[in-house]
Amino acid sequence: MAENGTPTLGIGMVGYSFMGAAHSHAWRNAVSFFELPVVPQRVVIGGRNADAARATAQKFGWGEVESDWRALIARDDVDLVDVCTPGDTHAEIAIAALEAGKHVLCEKPLANTVAEAESMTQAAATARERGVRSMVGFTYRRVPAIVLARRLVAEGRIGQVRHVRAQYLQDWLNDPAAPMSWRLEKDRAGSGALGDIGAHVVDLTQYITGEPITGVAAMMETFVPRRPLPGDGSGVATLGGHVTGDDVPMGDVTVDDAAVFLARFGGGALATFEATRYATGRKNAIRIEINGSEGALAFDFEDMNVLHFYDATEDAQTAGFRRILVTEPEHPFVAAWWPPGHLLGYEHGFTHQMVDLVNAIADGRDPEPSFADGLRVQRVLAAVEHSAAKDSAWTEIPQ
Amino acid sequence: MAENGTPTLGIGMVGYSFMGAAHSHAWRNAVSFFELPVVPQRVVIGGRNADAARATAQKFGWGEVESDWRALIARDDVDLVDVCTPGDTHAEIAIAALEAGKHVLCEKPLANTVAEAESMTQAAATARERGVRSMVGFTYRRVPAIVLARRLVAEGRIGQVRHVRAQYLQDWLNDPAAPMSWRLEKDRAGSGALGDIGAHVVDLTQYITGEPITGVAAMMETFVPRRPLPGDGSGVATLGGHVTGDDVPMGDVTVDDAAVFLARFGGGALATFEATRYATGRKNAIRIEINGSEGALAFDFEDMNVLHFYDATEDAQTAGFRRILVTEPEHPFVAAWWPPGHLLGYEHGFTHQMVDLVNAIADGRDPEPSFADGLRVQRVLAAVEHSAAKDSAWTEIPQ
Amino acid sequence: MAENGTPTLGIGMVGYSFMGAAHSHAWRNAVSFFELPVVPQRVVIGGRNADAARATAQKFGWGEVESDWRALIARDDVDLVDVCTPGDTHAEIAIAALEAGKHVLCEKPLANTVAEAESMTQAAATARERGVRSMVGFTYRRVPAIVLARRLVAEGRIGQVRHVRAQYLQDWLNDPAAPMSWRLEKDRAGSGALGDIGAHVVDLTQYITGEPITGVAAMMETFVPRRPLPGDGSGVATLGGHVTGDDVPMGDVTVDDAAVFLARFGGGALATFEATRYATGRKNAIRIEINGSEGALAFDFEDMNVLHFYDATEDAQTAGFRRILVTEPEHPFVAAWWPPGHLLGYEHGFTHQMVDLVNAIADGRDPEPSFADGLRVQRVLAAVEHSAAKDSAWTEIPQ
Amino acid sequence: MAENGTPTLGIGMVGYSFMGAAHSHAWRNAVSFFELPVVPQRVVIGGRNADAARATAQKFGWGEVESDWRALIARDDVDLVDVCTPGDTHAEIAIAALEAGKHVLCEKPLANTVAEAESMTQAAATARERGVRSMVGFTYRRVPAIVLARRLVAEGRIGQVRHVRAQYLQDWLNDPAAPMSWRLEKDRAGSGALGDIGAHVVDLTQYITGEPITGVAAMMETFVPRRPLPGDGSGVATLGGHVTGDDVPMGDVTVDDAAVFLARFGGGALATFEATRYATGRKNAIRIEINGSEGALAFDFEDMNVLHFYDATEDAQTAGFRRILVTEPEHPFVAAWWPPGHLLGYEHGFTHQMVDLVNAIADGRDPEPSFADGLRVQRVLAAVEHSAAKDSAWTEIPQ
Repeated sequence: MAENGTPTLGIGMVGYSFMGAAHSHAWRNAVSFFELPVVPQRVVIGGRNADAARATAQKFGWGEVESDWRALIARDDVDLVDVCTPGDTHAEIAIAALEAGKHVLCEKPLANTVAEAESMTQAAATARERGVRSMVGFTYRRVPAIVLARRLVAEGRIGQVRHVRAQYLQDWLNDPAAPMSWRLEKDRAGSGALGDIGAHVVDLTQYITGEPITGVAAMMETFVPRRPLPGDGSGVATLGGHVTGDDVPMGDVTVDDAAVFLARFGGGALATFEATRYATGRKNAIRIEINGSEGALAFDFEDMNVLHFYDATEDAQTAGFRRILVTEPEHPFVAAWWPPGHLLGYEHGFTHQMVDLVNAIADGRDPEPSFADGLRVQRVLAAVEHSAAKDSAWTEIPQ
Repeated sequence: MAENGTPTLGIGMVGYSFMGAAHSHAWRNAVSFFELPVVPQRVVIGGRNADAARATAQKFGWGEVESDWRALIARDDVDLVDVCTPGDTHAEIAIAALEAGKHVLCEKPLANTVAEAESMTQAAATARERGVRSMVGFTYRRVPAIVLARRLVAEGRIGQVRHVRAQYLQDWLNDPAAPMSWRLEKDRAGSGALGDIGAHVVDLTQYITGEPITGVAAMMETFVPRRPLPGDGSGVATLGGHVTGDDVPMGDVTVDDAAVFLARFGGGALATFEATRYATGRKNAIRIEINGSEGALAFDFEDMNVLHFYDATEDAQTAGFRRILVTEPEHPFVAAWWPPGHLLGYEHGFTHQMVDLVNAIADGRDPEPSFADGLRVQRVLAAVEHSAAKDSAWTEIPQ
Repeated sequence: MAENGTPTLGIGMVGYSFMGAAHSHAWRNAVSFFELPVVPQRVVIGGRNADAARATAQKFGWGEVESDWRALIARDDVDLVDVCTPGDTHAEIAIAALEAGKHVLCEKPLANTVAEAESMTQAAATARERGVRSMVGFTYRRVPAIVLARRLVAEGRIGQVRHVRAQYLQDWLNDPAAPMSWRLEKDRAGSGALGDIGAHVVDLTQYITGEPITGVAAMMETFVPRRPLPGDGSGVATLGGHVTGDDVPMGDVTVDDAAVFLARFGGGALATFEATRYATGRKNAIRIEINGSEGALAFDFEDMNVLHFYDATEDAQTAGFRRILVTEPEHPFVAAWWPPGHLLGYEHGFTHQMVDLVNAIADGRDPEPSFADGLRVQRVLAAVEHSAAKDSAWTEIPQ
Repeated sequence: MAENGTPTLGIGMVGYSFMGAAHSHAWRNAVSFFELPVVPQRVVIGGRNADAARATAQKFGWGEVESDWRALIARDDVDLVDVCTPGDTHAEIAIAALEAGKHVLCEKPLANTVAEAESMTQAAATARERGVRSMVGFTYRRVPAIVLARRLVAEGRIGQVRHVRAQYLQDWLNDPAAPMSWRLEKDRAGSGALGDIGAHVVDLTQYITGEPITGVAAMMETFVPRRPLPGDGSGVATLGGHVTGDDVPMGDVTVDDAAVFLARFGGGALATFEATRYATGRKNAIRIEINGSEGALAFDFEDMNVLHFYDATEDAQTAGFRRILVTEPEHPFVAAWWPPGHLLGYEHGFTHQMVDLVNAIADGRDPEPSFADGLRVQRVLAAVEHSAAKDSAWTEIPQ
C-alpha cells in the first residue's frame, strides 16, 4: 500500500540506458501528474553493468539494484517487469517473467525475429488466462496527436482510407565517420533502420487506420558498409561521437541503412513507407499522412503537438487543413498537464503508456498494444526483408 | 465596338515604369480571362520620357504614345485615364481627367497630402453626378484571399473584432549602400515606408474589418539618413543597384525608413501597425492578423494564395487554424483562371481590379475603393505623422 | 521583322482549351517581359472546333484561325508548331510538323505509348540535322524554385543523392459523382494519374538530380471504376461539374486513379513516387524531397515560390532548412518580373519555357527538355505499368 | 550530503498549485538528467491549504509540509526558499527569506508594484554581500531556442537591432462566461494580461537583445468588464470552468484584458508589443521577431523547439529563414536529454532554471535573471500603465 492507502504495483526494470531513463522518468511522472488506482513503485532496477544501473537508480529513485535479471523476476515485491534491453534479449526475459506470473512491459521491437515474437505472443496468451497482462512499448501511440488521429478515423471523419504515406527519417548515420554500434549489427539489432524506426511507422499506421497491412514490395540499402570501430574496438558505441584517422579498425555494417516499401492496407489503401538514418536535415521526422474519402490527416513528430486535419465535407470556400494544436483539456491525456498551448515533449508518451498500462492492470483489462500487435509488426518487417531480397516481389503478410 | 460587337472602353495610361507594366498587363488579361460587358482598349500611353513610353507601348500593345498628359486626356478615344505616375502628380492629372469627363483609375497613395486628397475626392464627387467613375488603386484588395477575408468578416464568421496586427515588411533599404531614389525624397514621395507600403495595410485592415481607424499613437524613424546619390548625381535611381566608394556624393533621406503605430478601430479593436524597409529577411510581407470573438484570420502576402481561418465555435477537439488554399472555383475571381492548386501571383490583383472597374462602369455603379476611401487612408497617414512628431500623443482621425 | 527591327518567329498553335490559354498567354508575356533576340508572333491557332478556336484567338490576339492542322503546318508564315492537343494526337502532328521543317513545342506527355514516343524522338533527331528544334512541354521545369534546385544539385551543394520522395497529389476525382471525361479513357489519355501528373514528377526528379531512373516496382489502383456520363452521354466532359441521379448512364473508367512506385536512380538513390487524384485536401501538390550526403532540398508546388534547402556542412548550432523565397533578381527568370517578395504564379513557367525555347532557336542550340527526355519519361511510365501488372516485380528501365 | 557524497541544498517551496507542480517536477528532474555539483533536496513544501500542500508533497516526494511560511523559512534544513505564491505576497516572503540568509527563487512577476520590486532588489543587494543568491523565475529564458537566440545576437549574427515585434497571445478569456478569478483582480494580480504574460515578452526581448527598453506609448483595454462569480461567490476560481445562467452573481474585472504598446530599445530599435487573453486561436503564442542589420530571428512558443534565423550576409540565391530544430547536443541544455529531433516541452525550462541556479550557488556567482532584472520589467509595466492612462503619451523608463 502507498502512503495514502492506495494499493501499489512493484516495478522491476531491466535495462538502464536511454530507454531506462525514459521509463524511469515515466513511472515517476505517472504518479505525479495522474490519478492512478494503483501506485507503481520503483522497486528494483537490473542490468549487467551494476555501476551504470546504480547510477540510474540514484538519479531516478529506484529502491535497489539487481545484476541478475532472473533474480529480479523472482522477487516477491516485483509485480511487473519492464524490459528495456536490446531486442535480442526480449524473448528470454519476457517469457520468463510471464511464466513467473509477472505483468510485462516490453520495449519495441517485440523481438528480432518472427519466431521469437510468436513464442512471446504464445506466452502472453497463456499468462493472460491467469490474469497476467503484457504490453509492447510502441510509445508513439501515446502522443496525444496520434491518439486524436486514431479517434478521428474511428469516428469516420476521414471516411474510407485510400492513401497512406509514412516515413521515419533521421540523419545521424549520414557521416561515414560515425562509429559502429550494436544497432548496426544484425545479430544484436535484428535489422537496421527497418526494425529500429520503420517498426514505429508500421505500428502507427495500423493503429491509426485500424487496418492491417496485407502485403508489401520493398527495397533496402546499406549506403556505408564499413564503419570505424569505436575506441577499444569492442564494436559497442553509443550514439554520436565520431571516429576518424587512417589506421582506425573498421567493422562491417550488417543491417540496412534505409528501407522503402509499398504496401496495401486491409481496406484497399495504397501506401508508401520509408525508414532511413540518412535523410539529411530530418532529425526524428515521423511523418504520417492519410487521405480518406471524407477527409485527411497529417502528422510530423518534429512538430509533435500538432495534428493537421482536412474535412472534405466542409464548404469549399472555407475548407483547408486545420492545424490543431493538441494541447486542449479535451485532447487525450492533456488535462493532466499544463494549460492550452504549453507543449508536451518526447517523454510524455512514456508517461501516458505507464498510465494506460496501470489502469488496464487495475481494471483487469488487456492493455494495448499487445504482444500480438508486436508480432503483427514483426511479420510486416519480415515480409519487407523477404521482398527486398526477392527483387521487390509482392509479399503477402500472414494475418 | 470590339470585333465581336461588344462596346469598348478606351484607356489612356499616364506612366510607364513598374506600375505601367503591371497595369498594361492587367488591362490585357482582363480581356483574355474574363467575360466583360465592355472591352477595354489600350489606346494610348503617356509619359515624359517618350522613348521609355514607346518601349512599354511596344511590349504591351498600346496603340499610340503621347508625351503630354493633357493631350492624352483631351483625346476623344480615351474614356478612362489610368494614372500611374508618382504621388506628387496625382491630384493635377486626376482632377483634370475627371473635369474632362473621363473615368479615372488613380494609383495609390491617392495623393501626397490630405489637402490634395480632399480636392480629388471633391472632384470625384462632382464628376460622379455626371456618371463619371473614379477608383484608387489599392490592388491588394483584389487578392482572392483578401476578398475571402472580407467576406468572412462580413458574414460574421469571426464575430466582434478585438485585435488587429498588421505589418508591411520589406528589407531592400537595409544595405546602407543602396542609393538615393525619388522614393526617399519627401517632396516627391510624400512619405517613406509609411505612405508607400504602410498605406496598403491601413487600407486593407479597414477594408477587411469594415471599420474605420479612429485614432493612432505613432513612432517613425530614419535609420540611414544619408545615402549615395546614383551615378549621375541626379538623385533619381531605380530599385536595386548599390553605390559604394569614398568619394560618392551623398544625398539626404527626407522620409521615414520605418513607422510603427497603435490604433483603435471603430468597433473598439486594439491594433498594432508596422511599415518598414529594414525587416531583414522579409521581402514583401504584408501580414494581417485579426482576432474576433467568434474566430480569427491570418494572411501573409509571401504566401498570398493562402488564408488562415480559425473558427472559435468549433468543437475544441478539432478546432485549429485552417490553411485555406484560395484557389477553388468557389473563391473570388479564381474560376476565370486555372484549376485548384494552380497558384496566382502578384499581378493577378491588378487584373481583378480592372475587371471590377470595368464592370462597375458598365453597370453604372461606383467602384471601390473610392477616392473617399483613399482620402480616409491619407488622413490616417497624416495622423501617424502628427503623433510621431508629438511624442506619440494619441491623435484622432477625422471621420 | 517586328516593328523594332527584331526578326520574328511565326507561331502556329494546335489546340485551344486549358493548355491553349496557358500557351497563348505565355507567348505574349515572353515578348512583354523579356528581351528576346527573335519576336514570336501569334500567327494562327488551329482546332477542330472552329468557334472555340476563334474565341481563344480573339481573347489572346491570334491573327487567324485554321480548322485543319495540316493546313496550319503548311503555312509559310508558321515557323514553329505548338502542339496543345490530347496525347493521342501528339505523334502524328509533331512528326508532320518536323518533317515540314517546323520547330515543334509539344505538350507533355510526349505521347501515349513508348512506340509513338520513339517515332517522335527519331523524327526529332532527323529534323535536328536540318537545324529544326524540338522541345517537350514539361513546364514545371521552369518554375524558378525548380531551376534553383537543379542548380544547387549541379553545384554539389547536396552531395551524393541518397533519397528521393516525390508526389503529385490532387483530389478532384474524390467525389464519385464527378463525371467521366476523356482523361479517364485509356484510348484518349494513355493512362490516368500516372501519365497526366505522375509524368511530371518523373521528369522533375530526373531533371533536378541529373540522374536517370533505372528501375521501378509499382502498384496501381482504380478506386471508382464507373462514373456518370456527362449530360449528352458523349463521354466528354470538362473538369468539375457533378452528375447525379438514379438513371444517369454510367461509363467505365479505364485508367488508373492512383499509382505508387519505388524507384532506383542512376547514382544509387532510393525513391518513392506517388501520383493520385484522390489525396483529399491536396489540390496540386507537387512535392519533391531530396536528401544527399551534403544537404537536402524540399519543394511543394502549393507554395511554389519557395525552395527549402538544408546545408549539412553548416555548424550544427545554426543548421536548419532554409525557406528560400525564390523571388530575388539573382534567382532564375525573376529579374524580368517584379521586385523581391512579389510572387509568381502557375502560368509563369509557361512564359519561361517560351523564352528558353526562343533563345535556343535563335542561338542554334537544342532546347531542353528534348523529345528524348520525353521518351525517357515514357519508358519509366511503361515500366510502372508493367510492374504493376506483374505483382510489383522489379522492372528495369532501358537507358 | 547526498548518498553519493555530493553536498546538498535544502529546498523549501511556498505554494503548491500550477507553479508548485512545475517547480517540484523541475527540482526532481534537475537531479535526474544533469550532473550537479550540489544536490537539491525537496525538504519542505508550504501553503495555507495544508491538504492541498500535502497532496502535492505526496505526488512529488517532498519530505514535509509546513503551513506557516515563516516557520518554513526558519528551518535549518532549508537553504533556498522557492516562492511560487501569487504576486501580492512575493515581497514579504522573499525579503524575509533573504534576511534569514536563505537563497531565493521568486516566481515572476517579481512583485505587483515598482515599490515592492525596489524593496526586494534592495534586499537582494544586501543579501548578496553575505553570499546569499536570488533569482526571479522568468523560465522562458531557459527554453533552448531562446538561449540560442540570445547567443546569436551576442555573437553579432544579426548586427544592429532595428525592429522588435513581440506578442504574448492567449484566448482563454474570450468566452464571456468564463468566471472571475484572482487573476482578474487588481489587488491580487497587480495587472491582467500585462503583468501575467506581457511581463514575459518584456523580459525576453530585453534578454535576447541585451538592450533595455527606454520608453513606451501604450493602450490597454478590458473587453469584458463583469464576469460571473464562481460557485460559492468567493471570487476565487481556477482556470477553465464556465459559469452561466441569469441569476449568476457577477464580479468586476479590475485588470486589463489586453495591452498593446510601442517601445524603443536602448540601441534605437523600434518595437511593438501586445499581450492579450482574447486572441482567438492562439493558445500560448509567445512570438518574438527581431530584425537586425545583419540578420533576423523569429520564435513562437507554440513551436518552441524551433528558432528561425535569417543570415542577411549570405548569398542572395540561397538566403532564407532557417528553421533550426533546437534539439542538437550542441544546443543549450539539450545534451542532457534525448537524441536530436526528440522534442522538449514546456516544463523543461523550469528544470534548466534550477540547474543554472544550483550551479551559480555552487560557484558563488549571481544567477540571472536577478531581482534587478525583475525590477526592470516592473518599471516597463508601470510605464505602460502610466502611458495608457495618459492617452498613450510617451513615457520614459528610468534606467
